[in-house]
Amino acid sequence: MTEATFPLNAWYPAAWSHEIRHELAARTICDRDVVLYRRQDGQVAALEDACWHRLLPLSLGHLRGDEVVCGYHGLVFNAAGRCTYMPAQKTINPSACVRAYPAIEKHRMVWLWPGDPALADPAKIPDYHWNDGTEWVGEGGTFYSLKCDYRLIIDNLMDLTHESYVHAGSIGDDHVTAAPFDVTHTDRTATLTRWMIDIEPPPFWAKALGRPGHVDRWQIITFQAPCVVVGDVGVALTGTGAPKGDRSQGVNGAFLAAIAPETEKTCHYFWNFVRTFKTDDAELTGALNRAHVGDGNGLYEQDKTVLEAQQKAIDRNPRMPFYTLNIDAGALWARRLIDRMLASEQGVRPPSVAAE
Amino acid sequence: MTEATFPLNAWYPAAWSHEIRHELAARTICDRDVVLYRRQDGQVAALEDACWHRLLPLSLGHLRGDEVVCGYHGLVFNAAGRCTYMPAQKTINPSACVRAYPAIEKHRMVWLWPGDPALADPAKIPDYHWNDGTEWVGEGGTFYSLKCDYRLIIDNLMDLTHESYVHAGSIGDDHVTAAPFDVTHTDRTATLTRWMIDIEPPPFWAKALGRPGHVDRWQIITFQAPCVVVGDVGVALTGTGAPKGDRSQGVNGAFLAAIAPETEKTCHYFWNFVRTFKTDDAELTGALNRAHVGDGNGLYEQDKTVLEAQQKAIDRNPRMPFYTLNIDAGALWARRLIDRMLASEQGVRPPSVAAE
Amino acid sequence: MTEATFPLNAWYPAAWSHEIRHELAARTICDRDVVLYRRQDGQVAALEDACWHRLLPLSLGHLRGDEVVCGYHGLVFNAAGRCTYMPAQKTINPSACVRAYPAIEKHRMVWLWPGDPALADPAKIPDYHWNDGTEWVGEGGTFYSLKCDYRLIIDNLMDLTHESYVHAGSIGDDHVTAAPFDVTHTDRTATLTRWMIDIEPPPFWAKALGRPGHVDRWQIITFQAPCVVVGDVGVALTGTGAPKGDRSQGVNGAFLAAIAPETEKTCHYFWNFVRTFKTDDAELTGALNRAHVGDGNGLYEQDKTVLEAQQKAIDRNPRMPFYTLNIDAGALWARRLIDRMLASEQGVRPPSVAAE
Repeated sequence: MTEATFPLNAWYPAAWSHEIRHELAARTICDRDVVLYRRQDGQVAALEDACWHRLLPLSLGHLRGDEVVCGYHGLVFNAAGRCTYMPAQKTINPSACVRAYPAIEKHRMVWLWPGDPALADPAKIPDYHWNDGTEWVGEGGTFYSLKCDYRLIIDNLMDLTHESYVHAGSIGDDHVTAAPFDVTHTDRTATLTRWMIDIEPPPFWAKALGRPGHVDRWQIITFQAPCVVVGDVGVALTGTGAPKGDRSQGVNGAFLAAIAPETEKTCHYFWNFVRTFKTDDAELTGALNRAHVGDGNGLYEQDKTVLEAQQKAIDRNPRMPFYTLNIDAGALWARRLIDRMLASEQGVRPPSVAAE
Repeated sequence: MTEATFPLNAWYPAAWSHEIRHELAARTICDRDVVLYRRQDGQVAALEDACWHRLLPLSLGHLRGDEVVCGYHGLVFNAAGRCTYMPAQKTINPSACVRAYPAIEKHRMVWLWPGDPALADPAKIPDYHWNDGTEWVGEGGTFYSLKCDYRLIIDNLMDLTHESYVHAGSIGDDHVTAAPFDVTHTDRTATLTRWMIDIEPPPFWAKALGRPGHVDRWQIITFQAPCVVVGDVGVALTGTGAPKGDRSQGVNGAFLAAIAPETEKTCHYFWNFVRTFKTDDAELTGALNRAHVGDGNGLYEQDKTVLEAQQKAIDRNPRMPFYTLNIDAGALWARRLIDRMLASEQGVRPPSVAAE
Repeated sequence: MTEATFPLNAWYPAAWSHEIRHELAARTICDRDVVLYRRQDGQVAALEDACWHRLLPLSLGHLRGDEVVCGYHGLVFNAAGRCTYMPAQKTINPSACVRAYPAIEKHRMVWLWPGDPALADPAKIPDYHWNDGTEWVGEGGTFYSLKCDYRLIIDNLMDLTHESYVHAGSIGDDHVTAAPFDVTHTDRTATLTRWMIDIEPPPFWAKALGRPGHVDRWQIITFQAPCVVVGDVGVALTGTGAPKGDRSQGVNGAFLAAIAPETEKTCHYFWNFVRTFKTDDAELTGALNRAHVGDGNGLYEQDKTVLEAQQKAIDRNPRMPFYTLNIDAGALWARRLIDRMLASEQGVRPPSVAAE
């Protein structure tokens, strides 16, 4: 039996809001095949994507009002998963139903709870307000079925040292590796903070700032277990007080990552890069998106290459756990929070934090 | 160990007669790799497709008269599977042979018996006379390596309720679902009979009949265990006596299905649609064939989409046995007859029919 | 647990010399992922192709001098596999290293020792001097990831009876099968010798000889365990003393095979066909190469078809060991020598040769 890699009692991003219309859409989240659709009142419904009768994916059927008609024998299921029609029968088996998954739309994403519906507390949806499309501006995109364990992406984002190597020449330089950093945590979050004081800005940020001179650069990356990473990043002119909280002489962006395991070894990676500067510049919005995912060598495409190669290597070299370096402190905390959620689900007492 | 899904002591369709010439043809039937060829006297021979010596598929060799020469080291096997030549040896190991499978040509098909040759009774070849090309006319075709358990096709054909959903607009309408039906059975067959009295004919049959007015429509579908389904279908003008046996004011067709498991999860589906009306109309014959398998959305291609999706869903959701509805009565009987053959092969006492 | 199919304590061909430059090259040998590169002093280095830290293939990084920089977080490893730099750390974990594989360049090939480095005796590199590019002339090529157990190629080459069937019309004819042969062996080699006296030469050799008349044809094939086969082949005018050692009235070639298991069921097959006649004829060199691997039906491509089909059949028919014929005597000895190496590695007493 393989070890669980993702907790089930959690909200996972299932889709961008704009992807879900009044039509059936199939997606696999946490190894569960799900059919998603928007009801006529605008709410999102999510059902098990296999008919109660003969398992045909309901996503091959069609909607009739807010109900799903199976494409094989015409069984009908309402948005709660209950069967409301069976062909050539007057009585409907009262146990005939498919699973309905709690699904909530927030921050321009659809969040799905694959675990026990009774535990699906909307208050636990991750804070992802940067994605609202209001104060912060960005376009974003998705890597569907990216071929790695979703946790490898979290490792990646919680340690930006890799920028110096994977993204040399754009956002990465030796300052990132050289700067000290600090890690803090709560029950459900881990935050890595790195300040690079009085440095030459890397090309991307020099251009964004548009003013000459040395800068203070920050990377404040917060993980919300089990599947969201938000990186508050930016630069401000050195000596203008950014480390103390005054960012008025700087530019500020945020990378957003909401990741849903598809299977144990594949995931859907919903990403965005948003900013509070030049928010009306649509051309810049497009250019930033293309810089992340463009001609195959965008920033995140470089990561994808690394992540999928790493997964392949893990499959061939079952040497676990990884060896770790100082730079892995952020990722280690993220993993620890996930492990605790897993242990809690399995009724096992989670390892004590204090003892570590 | 997985449960057997097909009995071995049975005749399965291995090929259309016209496919087998005086040359080697490879095919996998019931997980057995077989090489088929027509002998010079016209009989069909079927051998294990792996040389006794080093397992090279004999189908990569060539025929010399009625014997097969291995393409690697030249060993020769006769049509009975016995080795008749070994390179650089004067004596031939008397145990050197490959399996020969009983194979018989009948009803324009080659039938193969993958099990114990001693039990291969030609009288057990299914009745498939509709395919003879005499009284009934049709062209037919094959789905090779269709990606589903062969029993899913039988389920599909034994319950034409699916026509209302999978084939809406051509042969399917609500009458099929609404009409009652009856199921009878013998030791080796199960028959589902459905009459739709005094209905508006669906487009296909209206055109075939070529006369206005309501009709009585029938579907009399007979399963011959383990792998043949024949559906006697048609319409006649209401009130002209079709339910009592007088079909003179109607048109009659039959869908023919002979299905061979290739593996546990793939099969070869030999199909035909034959008719007794307008039998000289070659254009109609072609049009009917294209209606079944045409541009990717023919009747049987619609079924293929459903069947392969269903198999995938079964692989992902090992919830068995299926839940069943009243409409599944025909399929259930078909499955039961297959299960009995399986039980009998495994020396297990088959479940009593009376008790059900 | 599957049985080992290749000994680890042996030199295997990893690459042609010309393939390895001062850049990173990935290759899998004996199920080990290896990154190869040429150091600035010309020596070849071979490291485990997975970073100590997070397993990313080092081949995705880059060289800095003679050291490899990981493409993820910048760890640096020297040619001995020791980590010499870790990001953001002053002290380097002394245990941080990747495996370094003994690799030696000889006879225009790079030989790699996947087993215990302490046992890697350069004197054990196979005699492959025919490939030096001095006395014997040829071009050669490689089948990378050929889909069969490497031992099937050895079986193939140790029994040229197959020429009569697989290569009929070029080098194969009935004389090969008809002629008697002799097998001798040492601890690490097996040699099959076949003389065909006073025969009509097959087309290839008739053309090479360029003189009319009957010939004496020889095939002297030597296996060096576990992975090299050299076939000394040629013809000389009958009666001029070739069988006694005088080949002056003949033409002489040698087929060379150095084979590295990639996995249990795939291998890299480095081949060459060299000759001592018309050694200045570059056009002939090219023509000979194309005769072996050309338009998909070259001599070795014919073998590839057979070998890969054989592997597939083995996977489907786990009937082992093979049945054997007299013609398999050479292959059997080769297998026996491999089996002894395997037994010796597993600490099992190898079967006695005398007893056979």
